[in-house]
Amino acid sequence: MPKISDSTIRRLSMYYRSLSEFETKGYKTISSEHLAKTEKLTPAQVRKDLSFFGSFGTRGLGYKTRELKERIGKILGLDHIWNVALIGLGNVGSALVSYKEFQKQGFLIKLLFDNDQRKINKKHKGILVSDVKDLVEKLKNNKIEIVIIAVPTQAAQEVADLVVSAGVKTILNFAPTRIKVPQDVVVRFVNMAMELEHLSFCLSNQDFSVAT
Amino acid sequence: MPKISDSTIRRLSMYYRSLSEFETKGYKTISSEHLAKTEKLTPAQVRKDLSFFGSFGTRGLGYKTRELKERIGKILGLDHIWNVALIGLGNVGSALVSYKEFQKQGFLIKLLFDNDQRKINKKHKGILVSDVKDLVEKLKNNKIEIVIIAVPTQAAQEVADLVVSAGVKTILNFAPTRIKVPQDVVVRFVNMAMELEHLSFCLSNQDFSVAT
Repeated sequence: MPKISDSTIRRLSMYYRSLSEFETKGYKTISSEHLAKTEKLTPAQVRKDLSFFGSFGTRGLGYKTRELKERIGKILGLDHIWNVALIGLGNVGSALVSYKEFQKQGFLIKLLFDNDQRKINKKHKGILVSDVKDLVEKLKNNKIEIVIIAVPTQAAQEVADLVVSAGVKTILNFAPTRIKVPQDVVVRFVNMAMELEHLSFCLSNQDFSVAT
Repeated sequence: MPKISDSTIRRLSMYYRSLSEFETKGYKTISSEHLAKTEKLTPAQVRKDLSFFGSFGTRGLGYKTRELKERIGKILGLDHIWNVALIGLGNVGSALVSYKEFQKQGFLIKLLFDNDQRKINKKHKGILVSDVKDLVEKLKNNKIEIVIIAVPTQAAQEVADLVVSAGVKTILNFAPTRIKVPQDVVVRFVNMAMELEHLSFCLSNQDFSVAT
């Protein structure tokens, strides 16, 4: 099984965004040098990242902007509408429901869950909020592929176990704790404090150069 | 200048969290094998990451949990209180103000800015909201070290230019667009959709194994 790093996937997402901007600006073709410069990378890194997925571009002529954008989009699964459910309508959960980029990239929040009776059976930004008690049944019936967990720490593992039992294979975890899942389930842990730690690392270690 | 990767810093943040949990559970020592297993990594990777920063642990005896946690915390700059300002009190910005992990790790949101007259000069979660017109002066006077930008796309570059002109060297950018800054300023771009793209990549490319 070929191995790919976390950072490569992150860079693909960045390339996708840059290529969209270049396309909007009317660039028909783009060189690996130009793309690299935008991302503060080397052209060799760009070519290496793309080489994982076959051959792109023409030596000396660069890449066709739109074609490369579409191919990377396809690699990232953005040629597809994904059914998403979000659990936990606290501060973070509510902010995520309003996050416009999700829908733009094909991530459709179809279900919302909470355990607060004041929120259940009411609409939040046009989506009906369900009782977390009905989680497994509703995830299955609505063919949910990605679940966003935004519940407090103490509820995170219990909720994750239910999500896994419903057959969901990918979880985005905003609860500030690690959740345990079977080997075949992918969890992406998002912690805003970790993003700030990246910056405090840079401020504390100015003798290091950080490669993205 | 020694180079360190993005992913290494991310793993340090993860080790820090695991070690805190192990400490709470009463583990006095921890092996690289145990730490690696928790993170789904190899022990060699753990040892390699730590080796960047000098020598840790004793062969055959492992690491002292608390000591290693404190040393990693120091590397990440968590032995320090950082003065943070946040610009833009929309959905994302408001959620970030309520994010408890920030304060826990020493990131103190001291200033809030917005351009909405209905929010300015009022308190939000106990912090006075200032007019973004006074940004440069207030960032300087309050010795702000890290700025979180959570404004709409079209305002992001203008706000970033002001932040840079105030001498701030690290920015966490939640605006869904790239911002241009001088070479000596570090920008960390956070995009929730990119986190979901990591998952849609995994769903679309099940013949790849993703290394974290």
